[in-house]
Amino acid sequence: MTHRLDMATALQAGPDGRLSGTTSDHYWNFAGPFGGYIAALLMRAVMQDERRLGPPVAQTVNFCGALSKGAFEITLQIDRGGKATQHWTARLLQGDATVATSTIVCANRRETFAHQTVAMPQVPPPEAVPQSVPPPGLPWLGSYAFRFIEGAPEFGKPPRTDGKLGSARTALWLSDNPARPLDYVALSSLADCFVLRLVQMRGGLAPMSTVSMTTYFHATDAEMEAQGTAPLLGIADSKRFVANFHDQSMELWGRDGRLMASGIQTVWFKE
Amino acid sequence: MTHRLDMATALQAGPDGRLSGTTSDHYWNFAGPFGGYIAALLMRAVMQDERRLGPPVAQTVNFCGALSKGAFEITLQIDRGGKATQHWTARLLQGDATVATSTIVCANRRETFAHQTVAMPQVPPPEAVPQSVPPPGLPWLGSYAFRFIEGAPEFGKPPRTDGKLGSARTALWLSDNPARPLDYVALSSLADCFVLRLVQMRGGLAPMSTVSMTTYFHATDAEMEAQGTAPLLGIADSKRFVANFHDQSMELWGRDGRLMASGIQTVWFKE
Repeated sequence: MTHRLDMATALQAGPDGRLSGTTSDHYWNFAGPFGGYIAALLMRAVMQDERRLGPPVAQTVNFCGALSKGAFEITLQIDRGGKATQHWTARLLQGDATVATSTIVCANRRETFAHQTVAMPQVPPPEAVPQSVPPPGLPWLGSYAFRFIEGAPEFGKPPRTDGKLGSARTALWLSDNPARPLDYVALSSLADCFVLRLVQMRGGLAPMSTVSMTTYFHATDAEMEAQGTAPLLGIADSKRFVANFHDQSMELWGRDGRLMASGIQTVWFKE
Repeated sequence: MTHRLDMATALQAGPDGRLSGTTSDHYWNFAGPFGGYIAALLMRAVMQDERRLGPPVAQTVNFCGALSKGAFEITLQIDRGGKATQHWTARLLQGDATVATSTIVCANRRETFAHQTVAMPQVPPPEAVPQSVPPPGLPWLGSYAFRFIEGAPEFGKPPRTDGKLGSARTALWLSDNPARPLDYVALSSLADCFVLRLVQMRGGLAPMSTVSMTTYFHATDAEMEAQGTAPLLGIADSKRFVANFHDQSMELWGRDGRLMASGIQTVWFKE
C-alpha cells in the first residue's frame, strides 16, 4: 500500500518540464497544508530528477503565500553543477502566484574526517513515552506520531492568563504515522513538525506562520537506511522573539545518537 | 570618505534592470572574495531597491562557484509581496555563470510581544582583548578587526600532528576595519566572518568552502542605530562533521546583550 506521504507528494512531469500535483487533506493545517508538506514536495521534485548528483545536504524553503486546496505546479532549475555540489532552485506555483521557493544543494558525498561535537540528549526511550492524542481539526497532526518528553503544546487549553511565559524548548519522539522508512522526502517534512514556539511560550493560538526554513541533512546513506521506521528524537528551541518575528531551531537525532538533521526557521507572528 | 565596504558593494543599475559592480581586493580570500562580501553585495542590491517593504529578516546565500576578479551583474526578482512580508530572489552572475543565489525576506516590523530566552555569554570587554594581527595574503582578514576571546584560528602554524582535535567553538569581538556604523549590509557580511570550524578543529588548512549560509536578522532599527561602530560579540560552533560537509552556527550579540543576528552555514571540505 502506498504511504500517504508518497501519494500526497506524487508529481507528474509535463511536456514543458513542469511537474504537477494535487494537495492532500492528510497534511492540512489551518489555511493550507503545513509547511513540512511543502518542503517535502519541493524535495521530492529534486529527488526524482534523473539529473541529480547525489543526496541533498541543504534545503531552504521560503513560504511566500498559502497553498490552496487542489492542483499546483513545480518548476525546477539547476543553477550550477560541479563534481562536488549541485545547486537547485525549485518553485511551487498556483496559477501565476509563487507559493514557495526552495534552494536545494545536492552533493557527491564520500567518507571523510568525521566527528560529532555534541551528544544526543538523554531521554526515556520512545516506548516509555505515551503517544499524544492530537486535537481534531488539524489533520496534519494525525499524519505524525508525537511522543512529547518535554514542552508539549497545550492544545485545546485556553490561552494562559497568568502572564507567565512557558519554555520555548521541546523534546519529543517523532515519526511518520503510519510508520514509513526514513528518506530525504520524509526528513524534509519532519524538520517542520515542531509546533511554533510562540504557542508554548505564551499559550493559546495567534496568527503566525513560518516565513523561511533551512534544513541541513547530515545523515549518511547507511544511517538513513539503518533508521528505518524508528522514531527520531526531535529538539526545538528559540532564542529571540521581537518585532513580529521569532527564530526557531531544531535537531533530529537517530539511532546510535547520530545527528541526522539540524536547522532553523523564522516565524512571523501578529502581535 | 567612503568606507571600503560601501565602495566594494557599489552597484549601478542598467537599462535592463540588472545591477553591475566590480570586485574589491579588500575582501579577497584565496580564490575569490570571502563569502560575507557576496552576501553583502546581494543584500545591498535589495536594500537600495525602492520597492523594498522594510528591513530584512532572513537571508540565505548559496555559493555556487567562485567570483572572479572584475565585473559582475546582479538580477533581482520579487517572488511575492504582501503587507507583512516580501520575498526576493537575487542572483550574482558573471557572463552566463551563476556565482551565487540569495533569497531575502523583508518585512513590515512593528513592536510586538518580545522576549529573549538566552543571555549574552559573559566575556571580557573588547578593550580588554588584544586585536589579532592577521597573516599576510588574505586581504579580507584586514577588513575586519578580530579580538579573539576563545578559539582563535591557528594561522601560520603548521597542521597539528598529534591527532588531537581542537574545540569547534570561537568567541570574539568583531567589527569592520576601518570602523563603520552597523547596517544590514555590514551585518550580512559580519555573519560570515567566522573562520571555518574545520580549521581549528583539525589544525592547518585544507580545501574547503561554504556552500550555503542562512542569517536571521533580529535587531530592531533602534538597536541597529544604537550599535553604531561598537564591536559585536560573535560566537561560532559546529555540531557534526561527516562525509565532506560540516555545519556551523553563529550568533552576533550587540549592546545591552541583545541578539542582533543568528544563523547557520554548511561547509564542504575535501577529505
